[in-house]
Amino acid sequence: MNKGNSALVVLSGGQDSTTALYWAKKRYEKVVAVSFDYGQRHRIELECAKKIAEMAGVEHEIIDAKFINALAPSALTRDSIDVACPAGQLPTTFVDGRNLFFLSMAAVYAKQLGINVLVTGVCQTDYSGYPDCRRQFIDSLEVTLALAMEYPIYIVTPMMNITKADEVLMAYDLGPDCINALGYSHTCYEGQYPPCGTCPACVLRAKGFHQAGLEDPLITRSRMENDGMSLG
Amino acid sequence: MNKGNSALVVLSGGQDSTTALYWAKKRYEKVVAVSFDYGQRHRIELECAKKIAEMAGVEHEIIDAKFINALAPSALTRDSIDVACPAGQLPTTFVDGRNLFFLSMAAVYAKQLGINVLVTGVCQTDYSGYPDCRRQFIDSLEVTLALAMEYPIYIVTPMMNITKADEVLMAYDLGPDCINALGYSHTCYEGQYPPCGTCPACVLRAKGFHQAGLEDPLITRSRMENDGMSLG
Repeated sequence: MNKGNSALVVLSGGQDSTTALYWAKKRYEKVVAVSFDYGQRHRIELECAKKIAEMAGVEHEIIDAKFINALAPSALTRDSIDVACPAGQLPTTFVDGRNLFFLSMAAVYAKQLGINVLVTGVCQTDYSGYPDCRRQFIDSLEVTLALAMEYPIYIVTPMMNITKADEVLMAYDLGPDCINALGYSHTCYEGQYPPCGTCPACVLRAKGFHQAGLEDPLITRSRMENDGMSLG
Repeated sequence: MNKGNSALVVLSGGQDSTTALYWAKKRYEKVVAVSFDYGQRHRIELECAKKIAEMAGVEHEIIDAKFINALAPSALTRDSIDVACPAGQLPTTFVDGRNLFFLSMAAVYAKQLGINVLVTGVCQTDYSGYPDCRRQFIDSLEVTLALAMEYPIYIVTPMMNITKADEVLMAYDLGPDCINALGYSHTCYEGQYPPCGTCPACVLRAKGFHQAGLEDPLITRSRMENDGMSLG
């Protein structure tokens, strides 16, 4: 197989990265997925990523990235830092550059596999205070990574400039396997399945499907399971 | 204090970063040091860093970066990777981008402290297969970090283009406190004190002092201790 036609997908187990995984499967001969264990509050995210990689039939590696949360300033661990949550700002326990670390670690792993392409579902349309989700950052990171490793890394961001509704339509274009996998993706901030439906993440996801005029396969699945049926 | 006139020094406990620490103390009102615990084969490195930070009278934080070694490909932990050591190349267990991760973590920590300047002793004069020690990489990383965090980070590299002999002369210009601290720095690949004197790191260090026409304070210290005296 021509490794030059391979891609490593950063798979969080959410809607964006699940769609990005199937987008990549359509375009690259070989696709591998990687997830990061950064001490997620809800372990369901990593379980979803694992399940979705299985459904997609791709190799999947979970890499320990718990150092990221340990980097967060905490009055409990660092005498030198005052912890505060200024009104209207991200709390001081937010860790800057999380995506910088994920993509850098993915790049190191990609090089080990002989892969030059990273695919990530980051989306600046939903940009909400995370500067390392913007394409301008990604462009600069590509240069930095190539210099750091003397190895070219291309970071492909198919969702970067599309709306959530367009992303839903993209998933339907990708076919029933992608839709089925989205039924096992995780979005809810409360870590619930069936999703709570009221947290900001659930509301944003629902809005995208509503605007696209389609039912969320995650909702379909939970309704069918509730009716004693199964999509699996 | 004007935090804009503060610097965070990446302190490994070696000769370069010890000199860089005293260089920074001369130029910035406030200096803080950070070291990374990446599972060093020789714990003496971190002990030296701690001792030197104490001698310099600067705050010192040790940040867990053991994930870097965990990223190394290993047949023991990753079925998908063949471990090999091709002749004339870095072994496949070498982790790319180690300095990328150290400087990125230091940048996140600097932002938490309200500091915009990182000082690192990296030196491309001794460039030996580590592309992320070159200034071209550092320039690109500055842009990437500023975009990732929406916070300007300047990475100052006083040793980048000077020889080891010039670095020794710089240390003597910085004064006796710097020289004294260099007596507690660590270089030996074998993790020994007194240094083994024969490993490539000891040889390179000795060459620099020899060319500068000065005795290494680490050698002076070990000789004096051997004679029953102390520099401490």
